[in-house]
Amino acid sequence: MDTTVSHFYDPAEYRLRTFHDAVSGFVDGTTTPRDYLETCLAVIESREPVVKAFVTMNLPGARAAADASTLRYRAGKPLSPVDGMPVGIKDLFETRDMPAQMGSPIWKDHQSFRDAAHVHALRQAGAVIVGKTVTTELGMAHPGPTTNPFDAERTPGGSSSGSAAAIGACMLPAAIGSQVVGSIIRPAGFCGNIAIKPTFGALNRGGGHSALSQSHLGVHAGSLQDAWAVIHAIHQGAGGDPGQPGLFGDEILAPPVRPKKLARIATDGWVDVDAPTRDAYEEVIAWLESQGVAVLDADDHRAIAAFESAISGSRKLCHDLCEYELRWPLNVYREMGPGMLSDHMRARMEAAEEMTAEGYRACLARRERVKARLAELAPIVDGMVTLSQPGIAPVGLGSTGNTVFNAPASVSGGPSITLPLMAVDGMPLGFQLMGFAHDDAGAVGIARWMLEAYHRP
Amino acid sequence: MDTTVSHFYDPAEYRLRTFHDAVSGFVDGTTTPRDYLETCLAVIESREPVVKAFVTMNLPGARAAADASTLRYRAGKPLSPVDGMPVGIKDLFETRDMPAQMGSPIWKDHQSFRDAAHVHALRQAGAVIVGKTVTTELGMAHPGPTTNPFDAERTPGGSSSGSAAAIGACMLPAAIGSQVVGSIIRPAGFCGNIAIKPTFGALNRGGGHSALSQSHLGVHAGSLQDAWAVIHAIHQGAGGDPGQPGLFGDEILAPPVRPKKLARIATDGWVDVDAPTRDAYEEVIAWLESQGVAVLDADDHRAIAAFESAISGSRKLCHDLCEYELRWPLNVYREMGPGMLSDHMRARMEAAEEMTAEGYRACLARRERVKARLAELAPIVDGMVTLSQPGIAPVGLGSTGNTVFNAPASVSGGPSITLPLMAVDGMPLGFQLMGFAHDDAGAVGIARWMLEAYHRP
Repeated sequence: MDTTVSHFYDPAEYRLRTFHDAVSGFVDGTTTPRDYLETCLAVIESREPVVKAFVTMNLPGARAAADASTLRYRAGKPLSPVDGMPVGIKDLFETRDMPAQMGSPIWKDHQSFRDAAHVHALRQAGAVIVGKTVTTELGMAHPGPTTNPFDAERTPGGSSSGSAAAIGACMLPAAIGSQVVGSIIRPAGFCGNIAIKPTFGALNRGGGHSALSQSHLGVHAGSLQDAWAVIHAIHQGAGGDPGQPGLFGDEILAPPVRPKKLARIATDGWVDVDAPTRDAYEEVIAWLESQGVAVLDADDHRAIAAFESAISGSRKLCHDLCEYELRWPLNVYREMGPGMLSDHMRARMEAAEEMTAEGYRACLARRERVKARLAELAPIVDGMVTLSQPGIAPVGLGSTGNTVFNAPASVSGGPSITLPLMAVDGMPLGFQLMGFAHDDAGAVGIARWMLEAYHRP
Repeated sequence: MDTTVSHFYDPAEYRLRTFHDAVSGFVDGTTTPRDYLETCLAVIESREPVVKAFVTMNLPGARAAADASTLRYRAGKPLSPVDGMPVGIKDLFETRDMPAQMGSPIWKDHQSFRDAAHVHALRQAGAVIVGKTVTTELGMAHPGPTTNPFDAERTPGGSSSGSAAAIGACMLPAAIGSQVVGSIIRPAGFCGNIAIKPTFGALNRGGGHSALSQSHLGVHAGSLQDAWAVIHAIHQGAGGDPGQPGLFGDEILAPPVRPKKLARIATDGWVDVDAPTRDAYEEVIAWLESQGVAVLDADDHRAIAAFESAISGSRKLCHDLCEYELRWPLNVYREMGPGMLSDHMRARMEAAEEMTAEGYRACLARRERVKARLAELAPIVDGMVTLSQPGIAPVGLGSTGNTVFNAPASVSGGPSITLPLMAVDGMPLGFQLMGFAHDDAGAVGIARWMLEAYHRP
């Protein structure tokens, strides 16, 4: 029994078990990966007209891959824990069988002849690539058509909008996301996902749009088991980013670990958090304390205060870094004519043109200081906690919400996990657990303990 | 008068002055960028059938760009020191007007809609993009058709084969190269170029094939003035690699600086160097000493011995790093069918499959140690010298020669400059000057002094 499933991922309503739970049926022959895929496709058929999570799908390809997986289980030779798992791929990444359109008219119908590194690794491990999920324009802020699966009037968040919504809608057990500022953890929070943004560089992002120095590949899933299975399989087949040591941790999910000490981090966004969200958060904190976990804050240790001071202004820092690094290719795209870039992107271009090499170097130095302050926290606490988003998904599809709670983990490069432990007005809210660089497995162990021990919202 | 020109770059024979020298004529109206381009094209027409430096050319585009530059000089408003400079682009990089075929049947006729970051920056600065130059297969070892301009029976070196040969043949004043192990400095040495492999990350390599953690963008040129003008213009427009501080140094070429102390570095390849090459090298060393430069070796300072010890086995280290990092996309390419990858690349794939994440991490740690040993040399000497290649270009086009003298600077990430100060049997030989990370301008100052002060071979 998968004890790491999101409460918002409702197996009963959609008859979609977590993939981890389904595998025993594939092994004993009572069900098949093809059956599992068909359940996913039925949910997609029913919900996609409103949710709009997908840009493209390859159903014949997915069915053929599921049938091949069925044969492997029948032969007693599955390739990996993700053999037969239906997965969605964020449309910022190349696939040999579907276009990579990057949420941008510039890349409309752009078809690569190859799979991105992680897509290749997933297929090698037996996973079933179902379709490409909606992203914002070039993975930045300008939204696509996706709606929040819990309320179609609300944003699913972004930029991994389609992946987050597909999981929230129980369409798939797992989908790929990527995060530069807040593109995995925030939409996952809005959509009730469990999601992992691993340590910077832990998963190879080859074959994608982004060369940004802060872009992370990660995963959205209905359970922590399925999330870990996906990122482990990607690392197994494709390693980390070139020059990075990649993901550390075993194939099997880390055992649950009750932390001794956690730091609650006051990020910039806290002043604007509404009372119900604050109450929901405090309820989790109180529960942690009731379990014997010491929850420290900046007053308890100067290393916590130093980290908070270092991450202050992280969102602006992310924007400055990205704008400078995006001067190319945005300058090329702008020259392609009107309508190719959104007004939002044009405004960012203008900001980028104001920046100097010296200004950029100062930003890099600030990011290094955040990393150093994070490392200094490792002997003090077992992890850091905060919100995954300022509140429930805002009404309206014109904005994907505020990244202020996500920038610190993106800047620090440490792993970040969102757990759907809270709800306000029936909408999911993510509780963010941040860990230390290269100790993704350690963060996952704490996350597992919380998921298994905490009462459901 | 450009005092930094390579002796092997013969302005008299081809009536091709260095671009730096030509500019005064553009300014006073006695000649034009279009005239300069036509001189280049005449040399290309005469020599290309044997040299085979180019994969593709865009002559109408180049002529139009040269005419536009002519108008700017006429109006007294040139855009930069490279306005009107004809430049060749290594065929590993995207151009909006020519395919990027990567020396591989997989990428045959592959046409991008955009310019690579450095190509965009060069065009913005007014440079004239003439054509795409031959590269080895995917920038690795399997050679293209290019011949050495000084002896068509010999290799031009690789992987920047066409760029090195185009400069050696006086076809162009400058051409773009890239180096992972020895792909700029070695072919430049074989072809009598002046070339700069800047500090790792100093120039943005966006829009190219390689995401390798050791790939450097650099330049081949007929003079140090023109080489620096190109890399400065690239940095001005496109910055460095994302996450790297980029190139340091002013637009104007660093003044000549006589170093006080240089370390002569005994790299792995020295045991196989033939007597004439060794004699030519010792002649330069003796000259340095005659100028009051202290040339130290491992016996003189333990930091030099420590650096030599750290770089021992650098070539193997480079290969191990690259093989692991190239598992993707080579695995995708291999699956595309027979004939898509050379036997050489298939063999590297097999080696890559033997590697583990732990083995790769050990390689990364070794590279970090080399960088640390290099930094420790900075207070001891002003630079390091060695050969740019084991000897003159070997006979035969089946191999692009040995990278053993180049791997140390690639691993260390510091700048490396080759100076065509030597010759054996009428063939050029490069003398390699290595500098310290982010002090490219310092290395260039020493290189300039050597070029200006040393008697010609």
